[in-house]
Order: sequence, then C-alpha cells, then structure tokens
Amino acid sequence: MIIPTSDLHIECKLRKTREQILKTTEEIVGYAKAQGLKVELLAEDATRSDFEYLTKVFQVAAEVGVDRVVPCDTVGILTPERTVDFFSNLKKSLKVPIAVHCHNDFGMAVANTVAALSSGADECHATINGLGERAGNAALEEIVITLRSLYKLDLNIKTELLYGTSQLVSRLTGVYTQPNKAVVGENAFTHESGIHTQGVLANPLTYEPIAPELVVCTRRIALGKHSGSNAIRADLTNMGLKPTEAQFKDILKRIKELGDKGKTVMDADVLVIAEAVMGLDKAKPIQLEEMTYVGGDKVTSTASVRLKLNGKVVWGAAVGVGPVDATINAVKEAIAETEPITLEQYNVKAITGGTDAMVEVVVHMRKGDRKVTATGVREDIVKASMEAVLSGMNVLTTDYNNKTH
Amino acid sequence: MIIPTSDLHIECKLRKTREQILKTTEEIVGYAKAQGLKVELLAEDATRSDFEYLTKVFQVAAEVGVDRVVPCDTVGILTPERTVDFFSNLKKSLKVPIAVHCHNDFGMAVANTVAALSSGADECHATINGLGERAGNAALEEIVITLRSLYKLDLNIKTELLYGTSQLVSRLTGVYTQPNKAVVGENAFTHESGIHTQGVLANPLTYEPIAPELVVCTRRIALGKHSGSNAIRADLTNMGLKPTEAQFKDILKRIKELGDKGKTVMDADVLVIAEAVMGLDKAKPIQLEEMTYVGGDKVTSTASVRLKLNGKVVWGAAVGVGPVDATINAVKEAIAETEPITLEQYNVKAITGGTDAMVEVVVHMRKGDRKVTATGVREDIVKASMEAVLSGMNVLTTDYNNKTH
Repeated sequence: MIIPTSDLHIECKLRKTREQILKTTEEIVGYAKAQGLKVELLAEDATRSDFEYLTKVFQVAAEVGVDRVVPCDTVGILTPERTVDFFSNLKKSLKVPIAVHCHNDFGMAVANTVAALSSGADECHATINGLGERAGNAALEEIVITLRSLYKLDLNIKTELLYGTSQLVSRLTGVYTQPNKAVVGENAFTHESGIHTQGVLANPLTYEPIAPELVVCTRRIALGKHSGSNAIRADLTNMGLKPTEAQFKDILKRIKELGDKGKTVMDADVLVIAEAVMGLDKAKPIQLEEMTYVGGDKVTSTASVRLKLNGKVVWGAAVGVGPVDATINAVKEAIAETEPITLEQYNVKAITGGTDAMVEVVVHMRKGDRKVTATGVREDIVKASMEAVLSGMNVLTTDYNNKTH
Repeated sequence: MIIPTSDLHIECKLRKTREQILKTTEEIVGYAKAQGLKVELLAEDATRSDFEYLTKVFQVAAEVGVDRVVPCDTVGILTPERTVDFFSNLKKSLKVPIAVHCHNDFGMAVANTVAALSSGADECHATINGLGERAGNAALEEIVITLRSLYKLDLNIKTELLYGTSQLVSRLTGVYTQPNKAVVGENAFTHESGIHTQGVLANPLTYEPIAPELVVCTRRIALGKHSGSNAIRADLTNMGLKPTEAQFKDILKRIKELGDKGKTVMDADVLVIAEAVMGLDKAKPIQLEEMTYVGGDKVTSTASVRLKLNGKVVWGAAVGVGPVDATINAVKEAIAETEPITLEQYNVKAITGGTDAMVEVVVHMRKGDRKVTATGVREDIVKASMEAVLSGMNVLTTDYNNKTH
C-alpha cells in the first residue's frame, strides 16, 4: 500500500489534508489486516515530509498492525549522511520493521540504501540494473556486491547469477547498461591504461576490488591510448609475431596514435599495424573481390560474394532475414569448406543521427581455441558488417607461429 | 605525479620497499618544484594503504613543497562513512590542499566524492559521464547537480552545458550512457507510471528533484504499462480524437497490454489502437505497396518504393549511403510534393546477438509544429526503418481535428 506524506503530494496531487491521510492510513491498513493480509506501507515522498507527521502516519499504521513501513525517497534527494540521520531517528520512534526505497536522481541510490541498512533499515528495495522511474532505483547487483565485499556480509544470494540476470533483463527490457556500469557493465572488469594492465598482469588484486569470477565475468585487457607495452607485447606473441625492439617501438607508437583518436584498438588493428611495420606480406588470406545484395518487402534478401581465399577465387550466395544477414551468410558459405570460423557475437552500437549516420559493428569470432574481436565503421551497415567479419577472419587465418617461422 | 602507497602496489607492481617510495617521493617532488612546476601528487591505492605510512608520504611531499596531494581510491572500496573518517583524519595531519579521486566499482564514486568534499577534501577529480578505468570514475554532472541542488552551493559552473557536453563526449568516445543514468540519461526526465505522470502534470515538483531546464533537457511523459489515464487522454486530444468513456477504457486496456510486453508505447501505437477501438477508417493515408533495394561494394545503394498516398499511387527512387538510407530517401522522394514531413532523428538501439537479431528503430519526425515518435521492430534493419518512418508519417498525416470533425 502506498500513501503520500509530503504536503506537496498531499495537497497538489491528492487535494487532501494531513488529517485525511492519517484517517485513510488507519482505515486501509486496518481493513487489509482484518482480511488477514501481510501489509507493507510505503510513504511516498517521505524524505520531503514533515518528519514528525511522517512518524505519526507510521505509528498509526503500526497501531492497526502494519507489518513493515517504507519511507520512500521518491525523488532521490537523500545523501548518505542525511540517510543515516533519517533512519536512526525513525528507528527510535518505531517498533515495526523498516525498509528503504531509494531513487537515483543524484546518482546516490546505492550509497543511500547501504547507509540506511547500516543505520536502522531492516530491508531494502532494489531493482536489477537499477531500473525504475527517471534515473531509476538502487541497483540490486551493486548493493549485493557492496555488502558482500565491503561489509563481509553473507547474504545467501547467488552472486554468480548477477551478471547473467543483468544481461537477461537488459535484453528483455531493451534498456541497456552503460559500459562503465558498476559490477555488471561491459567494462567493469576491463583494464586499459598502462599501469593498470601491468599491475593486473602481475597480481589481479592490484586493480580488481571484485574478482570477476564472483559475478562470472571475464577479465579483459583492452588496448587503447593508455595501453602499456606489456599488453601489446602479449597480444603480438599470441599471434606469433616477434618484432625487433625498434619495430616494437614503432608498433607501439602507431597503436597509441590510433587510440588517441578515441578508438578501442582491436586484435585486427594490431595485426595490420604490426604487419605494416614488420614489412610482412600484406596480401590478406581473405580478400573481398565483390559483393552484391538485393532485398525488399516482396523479395527475399539475397546476397552474393566473390572472395579471394589464399589466392584462390571462391563464390558464395545465400539468403537471410535482411541484407546484413544475407551477405554474411554468403561469406560463410564461400569459406565453409576451408575455414571453420564461427561468428560468436554481432554487435551494433546504438546509431543516432540520420539514416546516413556512421555505424560501428563489432564482432567476436572464433576458430578453434582462438578468439578475436574486430570492428567495421561505415555509413552502410552492410559494408561495416562485412569489414568487421573479414578483418576478424583475416586475424584468425593468420598465424605466424606456423606460417612464417 | 603518481606514486603507489599500498604494500600490494609497492611490492607486487614496483618490487620496491616503503623506504624507496619515500625517498623517490622526496626526490621527484623536490626536483619538479626546483624547476618551478606546480605539483599535484597522487597516491595510488591510498585507501588500501597503511594510513600512517600514507600520511608520512604526503608529509614528506609537503616538506619539499608539493602543491596538492590526492589519496586515490584506486579500486573504489570507500563507502561514504569510511570516506568521512579517512578525509577528516587526513586533514588533521596535513596543511596542503587535498583532492579526492574516486572509482566507481561499487557504484559509490559520486557519493564518496561528495562525502570527501564535506569532510576535508578541497577539490575533486571527476569525469564527464563517469568515464574511466573499469566501472569508471565519479561523474562530473552528478557531483555538480548534487552540490548545487542538495547543498545549495554556487559552483560557477554552467549547468546548462552539462547535458550537451555529456552527449558530445558520448558520441566522440562511443561510450553511451544508459537511459537510467542520473542527470544526463535519456530517461532522467521521463515519467511513466500513473501516479508519477499524474503528479507531474499537476505540479512538476512532485516528481522532479532537478528541473529539466537546469541541464537543458526536456520533460517527457512516456506511455507504458504503468501509464495513467491522464497522459493517454492528453495524447488522444492532441490528435483530435474524442473517444466515448467506454471506448477510452478499452483504449487504455489495450495500451496497458502492449506496455505489459515491455514496450514503450509510441504515438503511432496509440493512434492505431484508438482507431481500431473507435471504428475509424483503417485505411492509412500512406500505405506501402512495394519496396526493393540493391547494393554492394561495386553497386551504388539504390531503392525504389511504390506507395499509396490517400488512395493515389506514387513512386519514388533514390540512392543512398546504404540500403536504409536509399529506401528512406525513396520514400521522401515519393511523398515530397504532397507531404512536407521531416525525419528529425533516426535511432537504432544497440543490436546484440547474431546478424539475424531483432532491430528496433525509433524515429522522431515533424510536420510543421507537430512532432511524433514511432518505432519499427524487425530482423531486417531496412524493413524496421521503413515501418518506423511510415507509421510516423501516418500519425503526422492523420489529424481528426480537421478531418473528421
């Protein structure tokens, strides 16, 4: 049950008086309890209410048997220190269990919820990914990991399901989480800058307050403008490339230049740069000679490609649910016999602007044990997808361990 | 200048001793000051350091003239109450200005930064959108609005530039902000559930702790499973639809059913539902009869469409940067003479999965003073775009104010 307790809500929204609210509270809680229900009473806009009046509403509810009361921080105006005061004071005047319900308008819902739990609140309201009205509510995954890691509390919650649950909710609601979201964001366990990657390679504890395994995530070392030489050297060794010191310095410089443009450097970029610097054969194993697609509402999306695969011309044609799907299917079909490559994930970053906006496609591909990421950036989503898939394939089919040494 | 102060960082990462760090601090700070530089010294992993040792490092730096010291919460393990203790104690033993540098691993970077500023820190480090390693750093926009709105501090910061700056950084870095991000998220000023929209329509203060104008954002009433009748009635009136009470109840029910599927209900959905319920002519002003496109790497993306516009057949053909652009250009070309409609914004939500994943396109369109949003959801991005644009156009060309009354 929910009832407002601030004068603003009582007067502007309900056009009632404080007395009427008190009376209604007593009646509805009393009635629900008489029916044998378990009753939680939420006081809306409690944090902007007259504190004495709020306490009175809760006391009236307690007298008629309410099971739990929840002062809601409806517009998220609490700060942790005010939360501590608020809940400590409330706890003094009430015998019933109290829960906390925070909104995130100032980015402090999680900190406020934790502060409330440490100073009088017995339970808390939280949502997966912090979903909720406006800037949302307190994020369950952040509260759980905070209580567990920073307060050493055993909550009997399966933390290993947090990341998967977050992903599922994100997919079902269409409300994505930002890469720098705590605990479950794409980058929460990614390290980029030089000192960070160097530290993590030496001992993960240096830069990881939460073990990725706790939420079943994977640590990732990203290359970019802040990357140190250790991460890049590890990447090259993986591909079987052994540049001289002078070559390595040049590679490093060019990668940083690419990173300076704000790009995340992908495996495919590192390979292209290293090959250029080391003067290796620039003919990629797979080259696009031609692609064509047709589609429409009365035409099945169909595409054909002509590729050069290690110097040999191969063709592929396929249908798909749309032009991107048809074109990539045609590529798969063309190389199916020779290269057992799997496209594991296909991502398009949100596109905003006009229908001619730049599209960035990122693909995760695998061949046996080897995994790579590659990207394509074009105005045409079909060309961007093709670029990403082909450059990923080229990294996967290039292995200097076997080929050149 | 940055130097680690935790034993973990000193030993595992640098393979040095506490004494060596003290000596290095003295030398490098002293050297830089001798060159006439202004020096800020960052102590890495300060919050996991031995507090006495950390203070000693800062004192040594102070003795050789450091201008500011920054104990970094490198892995984001502070909580607001620990922040207060930490900075209060530090302030007692130091004369030099202190800054705070928070990471967001537990979702508390903003709360911790504000707590530090209220208990000893003179300055703070912050980033736009909270960008930074892993889960990022403290978000500038959240700190600024918190200090201004909750602490009534005049910061001499142009808050009206916060939203635009956030958008710019998001675009340039490719790191998007989640819809429920505080202050600058797409939904930060959006109201959906019944009591919230009703309250805001009566008095914005009921559910808006931050005036949208402060950051130059627009309030938005979204329709969905929680929508109340007031918001939907306002929407229908706008379109010139005057349903009976019984019809209105049915419309409301169907909109809520759509919302229950997790969808945000667009203007175009409301119109389709209302027309169905009210038994209005179902023939849309604009109907797609046929569309075809071709493209490829050696073929200019070209599309043709055949539409029925108020019963009359019109054709259009156009080229574009890709199949979506070509197809939408063809539609524009077909209706150019009759309908002065502008496509103001074209958005594709991030697509994740395979190349056959569902694509959701949202468009913002305008005709004169009227603005609408419409959506299309298909596996084929071209079809999804076409669906969104046509349903938006159909809302814009439908006006029961002029047509049926």
